[in-house]
Amino acid sequence: MPEVPLKDSVGIVSPRRVHFGEDLALRSGKTLSGFDLMIETYGKLNEDKSNAILVCHALSGDHHAAGFHSKNDTKPGWWDHCIGPGKAIDTNLFFVVALNNLGGCAGSSGPTSLNPETGRIYGPDFPVVTVRDWVKSQVMLSDYLGIKQWAAVVGGSLGGMQVLRWAVSYPDRLRHAICIAAAPKLSAQNIAFNEVARHSIINDPNFHDGRYLEANTYPKLGLMLARMIGHITYLSDSAMREKFGRADSNFNTSSTNFGRDLRSGNLSFGFNVDFQVESYLHYQGERFSENFDANTYLLMTKALDYFDPSVDFDGGFSEALQHSNCKFLIISFSTDWRFPPERSREIVNDLLKAGKEVSYLEIEADQGHDAFLLPIPRYINALRAYLRQAHTEIIESAT
Amino acid sequence: MPEVPLKDSVGIVSPRRVHFGEDLALRSGKTLSGFDLMIETYGKLNEDKSNAILVCHALSGDHHAAGFHSKNDTKPGWWDHCIGPGKAIDTNLFFVVALNNLGGCAGSSGPTSLNPETGRIYGPDFPVVTVRDWVKSQVMLSDYLGIKQWAAVVGGSLGGMQVLRWAVSYPDRLRHAICIAAAPKLSAQNIAFNEVARHSIINDPNFHDGRYLEANTYPKLGLMLARMIGHITYLSDSAMREKFGRADSNFNTSSTNFGRDLRSGNLSFGFNVDFQVESYLHYQGERFSENFDANTYLLMTKALDYFDPSVDFDGGFSEALQHSNCKFLIISFSTDWRFPPERSREIVNDLLKAGKEVSYLEIEADQGHDAFLLPIPRYINALRAYLRQAHTEIIESAT
Repeated sequence: MPEVPLKDSVGIVSPRRVHFGEDLALRSGKTLSGFDLMIETYGKLNEDKSNAILVCHALSGDHHAAGFHSKNDTKPGWWDHCIGPGKAIDTNLFFVVALNNLGGCAGSSGPTSLNPETGRIYGPDFPVVTVRDWVKSQVMLSDYLGIKQWAAVVGGSLGGMQVLRWAVSYPDRLRHAICIAAAPKLSAQNIAFNEVARHSIINDPNFHDGRYLEANTYPKLGLMLARMIGHITYLSDSAMREKFGRADSNFNTSSTNFGRDLRSGNLSFGFNVDFQVESYLHYQGERFSENFDANTYLLMTKALDYFDPSVDFDGGFSEALQHSNCKFLIISFSTDWRFPPERSREIVNDLLKAGKEVSYLEIEADQGHDAFLLPIPRYINALRAYLRQAHTEIIESAT
Repeated sequence: MPEVPLKDSVGIVSPRRVHFGEDLALRSGKTLSGFDLMIETYGKLNEDKSNAILVCHALSGDHHAAGFHSKNDTKPGWWDHCIGPGKAIDTNLFFVVALNNLGGCAGSSGPTSLNPETGRIYGPDFPVVTVRDWVKSQVMLSDYLGIKQWAAVVGGSLGGMQVLRWAVSYPDRLRHAICIAAAPKLSAQNIAFNEVARHSIINDPNFHDGRYLEANTYPKLGLMLARMIGHITYLSDSAMREKFGRADSNFNTSSTNFGRDLRSGNLSFGFNVDFQVESYLHYQGERFSENFDANTYLLMTKALDYFDPSVDFDGGFSEALQHSNCKFLIISFSTDWRFPPERSREIVNDLLKAGKEVSYLEIEADQGHDAFLLPIPRYINALRAYLRQAHTEIIESAT
């Protein structure tokens, strides 16, 4: 962390492990007999416990959403620009809870944990978990924390799907649902990309049917490839062009910036790296593969594929949303082609059809799906304004 | 082939191998001392050899563009619906030549051929070839066939790039350039997808540094994965939805057809196939991996990445096109996100800037990049009309 502590940082934070002794019946029919959740909290819970915000993470996120773990820590939590004193999710106003979801690899019960029934690492035996299961475990966490109703549940991408599930299944336990860059269910193309990623992991010879940790290895190449594919879908074509084009290039004379030269040097006429985008993807894939668990990656992509809250409610998403009882803020990004604005507008239309109160914000942003994690002023300011208003309502309703 | 021969089919065709004894100096600096091209021809070359059309293939195509190889052959050539008596590329009017490009795996010199210098299979030693090299070899083929000027050079995708190269580098050797679903050069996203595909092949343990044939194996899983990724980029999101949605589903009640249920049955809560799109991709990947050479796949994707005719002409694509001397027909498809209409409009704009004669057709089609291979009436009829007009011009200019 910076030598002089930043005024708007939550500073040094300590994750904590919460153990739940109760059984958790999962959507698959299996049961977890007890489990752990790693959590972090920022800000102070007020007396009537009405100022709590739950932050749900996306595919590769975890409980470390803000602040630093030590003085020497150089990398803050994944949503640090958004959570802190005076920031959009203002810890002067709100008590913020972030957790690592079940099946994760950052300390909550998951494939890298010990299976209490066998004493062995779970690995592939950790059951498939769904968004519904996660939200169920988050409800148990709410009970543990004594939070009867969240001021807001917030999340982007897969996190936004948890927000939708909260609204549909636990209507009285949240006042605001803030769903960012998500969709009511995956498209065939979304599922296809996930399947290719899984295929790449499962077919890595070092996968060992998911027991790679016991074999003292890991499917590095498969996971790397999975992340490379993922990364392409997180960035827009134009973001890639901006990132990997050489602005000073002689070749930049075309009528559009497609003309930018993307090469990293002379052509190799071989299969080494010729273009900057190639080395970027290699780097991203490599870094990720060293820090993430392959079985968790499989579980997270299946949770995405399976997400479909409409199934329980006679099939229609607006029928499902009839059950909700909160206000909604839906946000999308113009160049997001993983969960494009069209998908968020579906949610909005189904909310309107269900007669619910919804605000919708479509942000012009060049960064593709990644935008939801970035400090884009219009987006962050809108989130700040919405949450300030929500806070005012809470204060008013308490008096 | 059908038991009763179809009137509009070219019928049974025989591929033939043409050997070139001359050296071919490649863009990489390497030289091929002699090479073979597999070709097929349909229709009759007229006396003044002015009615010839060259068909250039895309990534996985070959010389077998129309007709059947035997009476028992059930699958016609890859563009059979477009080439034949009375069809869009009318073999009653035109003499059509299709070839397998250098580096291919359907009989032309490539990684699966014997290297005459070593007596071993080329494998990874086959040099990297570029679109420019292909067109150079196609010029040699033209000379061999006695064709001084093609009535038209036609191709889609990577085939369209060969058409552009012809127009720029051999301006007097074609009257018409028909460039379908292509781009003036690849985007960073295009290159990224290619790199992931190559990465998947090269890291398959059965790749053996490209010497898999000598090791009596092949990188099936890597090639399968590469094709699965490719396939996602060939189809539009909406095409996938149409293909894999269950029209009779109870779940099809959402406000848009995103609501269609994509599942192939009950959820497995495991990592088997849950959705139709998964089994489709597996099938496509598997079939392809059994019929295509991995080294060829690497070469084809590099040819795509390297394509950039503007580089030789002071950097601008319109400067490059100044050198052309033919008429252009540029065609794109509305839902193609691999080479979207925007990229074709770039070509059109640069042609207009260069003062060239160009017709542009943007076809509303749901099928994504794949559309260029499909019998979409508006597209095929436009191609037919354009070529009839071209034929009339040829007749008139000869009299």
